[in-house]
Amino acid sequence: MNEGSAVRVCVDAMGGDHAPDAILAGIGPALDVDPGLHVLLTGPADVIEPFAAAHAGRVEALVTSQVIEMDEHPAQAVRSKRDSSIVVGCRLVKEGRADAFFSAGSTGAAMAAATLVMGRLTGIARPALAAVFPTTGEPLVFLDVGANADCKPENLLQSAHMGSAYASVVLGRSAPRISLLNIGEEPTKGSQLALEAHELMARGVPGFVGNLEANHLLDGLTDVVVTDGFTGNVVLKLLEGSSRTLLSQVREALAATTLSKFGALFAKERLTALKRRLDPEAYGGAPLLGVDGVCIIGHGNSSPVAVQAALEVAARAVRGGLVDSIASRVANGLGASVHAAKIAGSQDPVTPEG
Amino acid sequence: MNEGSAVRVCVDAMGGDHAPDAILAGIGPALDVDPGLHVLLTGPADVIEPFAAAHAGRVEALVTSQVIEMDEHPAQAVRSKRDSSIVVGCRLVKEGRADAFFSAGSTGAAMAAATLVMGRLTGIARPALAAVFPTTGEPLVFLDVGANADCKPENLLQSAHMGSAYASVVLGRSAPRISLLNIGEEPTKGSQLALEAHELMARGVPGFVGNLEANHLLDGLTDVVVTDGFTGNVVLKLLEGSSRTLLSQVREALAATTLSKFGALFAKERLTALKRRLDPEAYGGAPLLGVDGVCIIGHGNSSPVAVQAALEVAARAVRGGLVDSIASRVANGLGASVHAAKIAGSQDPVTPEG
Repeated sequence: MNEGSAVRVCVDAMGGDHAPDAILAGIGPALDVDPGLHVLLTGPADVIEPFAAAHAGRVEALVTSQVIEMDEHPAQAVRSKRDSSIVVGCRLVKEGRADAFFSAGSTGAAMAAATLVMGRLTGIARPALAAVFPTTGEPLVFLDVGANADCKPENLLQSAHMGSAYASVVLGRSAPRISLLNIGEEPTKGSQLALEAHELMARGVPGFVGNLEANHLLDGLTDVVVTDGFTGNVVLKLLEGSSRTLLSQVREALAATTLSKFGALFAKERLTALKRRLDPEAYGGAPLLGVDGVCIIGHGNSSPVAVQAALEVAARAVRGGLVDSIASRVANGLGASVHAAKIAGSQDPVTPEG
Repeated sequence: MNEGSAVRVCVDAMGGDHAPDAILAGIGPALDVDPGLHVLLTGPADVIEPFAAAHAGRVEALVTSQVIEMDEHPAQAVRSKRDSSIVVGCRLVKEGRADAFFSAGSTGAAMAAATLVMGRLTGIARPALAAVFPTTGEPLVFLDVGANADCKPENLLQSAHMGSAYASVVLGRSAPRISLLNIGEEPTKGSQLALEAHELMARGVPGFVGNLEANHLLDGLTDVVVTDGFTGNVVLKLLEGSSRTLLSQVREALAATTLSKFGALFAKERLTALKRRLDPEAYGGAPLLGVDGVCIIGHGNSSPVAVQAALEVAARAVRGGLVDSIASRVANGLGASVHAAKIAGSQDPVTPEG
């Protein structure tokens, strides 16, 4: 749908550990691949104007005077730095001058700016940050990875709708399977939050397939996994840490004897390919779902490849109507809940006794 | 301390997927290694009596008539099956006829039996289940891995004391470093639970070194990591699942071409050694901490090696006085809190105004 149609993505040139070089280096290839893509670049004049001039017609420079640093308090920085690349980027989306925003800067500041400036969608209490994981099957949508450390069951229900929309629009799953991360398979297992969320999801989420335990997270059994932002952030970081540790131990093990060193030489190329396949960067940043606009947040150490992938994801989200898809799923979900409540209420007088 | 002194461990012959064979096969090597070890075996006569006869003087048979199955409701099963191998085992510890109990049966039933029959230590609101992980440095004590899905800050504080005692007594750490699993390094980051637990631990836990993020969990930076039972269970299962997935992908990658297949041949032995090193089984089951007795719970698919390791851990815990060490740390912690409250209270009248 709308393949190739014009999409304007605002890119924060100053976000990320390797900004602006890695950011700019990722834009070129993205423009080459997608002829409909236009970039609005925010940042200081000396960084963005030469780049825009070199890509005239495809890249527009929007000079901003402030930068939000990684260690600033997110909400305070967003309020005080009105002319920062992050705040201006979100405002461009709000005003309809851009279709999407991408930043690899402070995750907290980008989330705060998107929530405050773009605003939340009707029916969404809290936006959620999603990640896309490689699995042994198809990639998986996993949320919340850190927007809300303390969640209510309703937040998890809304995350289910949002994750379903993302899997459908961006990953092309026709009927996404939705799971709840829990510490047992049975509906009666888990924390109070998980128990209540399970009940809400079983009643109101099309495609809900029940609880999933963490040992099966990478087995490709489902399309979307929902959890609270504390657990989700722990999972995301643990996967990062454990892959790093395990792959380095594999390398060490292979290098430990002359014979296996010989083996490692042949294996090196394959291991590098594997590492690339497991790299979450290839899946294009973390979408902030539930705000009134497309907002993709990159990892602080985003490489040019990660930036390119994020721009492709942003364009797909815009062309597929991600925001409208989320809004309508949540509205239908709300409708279904109200409907269910009405039916439940109406049963009292009409149900015959005994 | 007390090295080689007599220790009587009660072993549930019927617990685990490979029981009784794997259980019995693990006992022999443990007896060979530790001349002070005595085993009290619970289970049906035809299983345990021939084994006890073959190990006369070291193994005693205590015939039980019931077995709690893996799918039974834990607390109900413990109440109704008073002559099950799990309930009898915990009773032997309570009555002082055994020093420790080991089962690889239903984790829920073993936790319920230990809590109900042995009882909780004074000052412990909820026992916690601990796991010992391999890291790139020394093994790590991690708790709670599933005893309490819903924790209060006080539960995490008590887990810190209990984990510290375990690291000291069983792993021989002289001054254990204690960390709180959190989604940021700063004390101001995290869920409400993590924020409040951080405050309690900073005030009351000797050796508390602050928050640890999950990407550094395997880096060997600390001795004990504390979290709630929901997050802890997710972490434990994710580590199991991600190691399995990653190692199988490494194998696949190595086998994918003739050249790297040649490499894989040389690498195979090393990878097997690595898998063994990463195997949590080698670290001897999960101790249930906070009950009035030593209780070690094995993984359902415990191998003879895992059973042997669990018996060694049980003996070390008994000889090192684990239960007393937990009790005194919790009492000192309570004392410290009361003391701190008194000082805080006494400041009001003596502090001059202005």
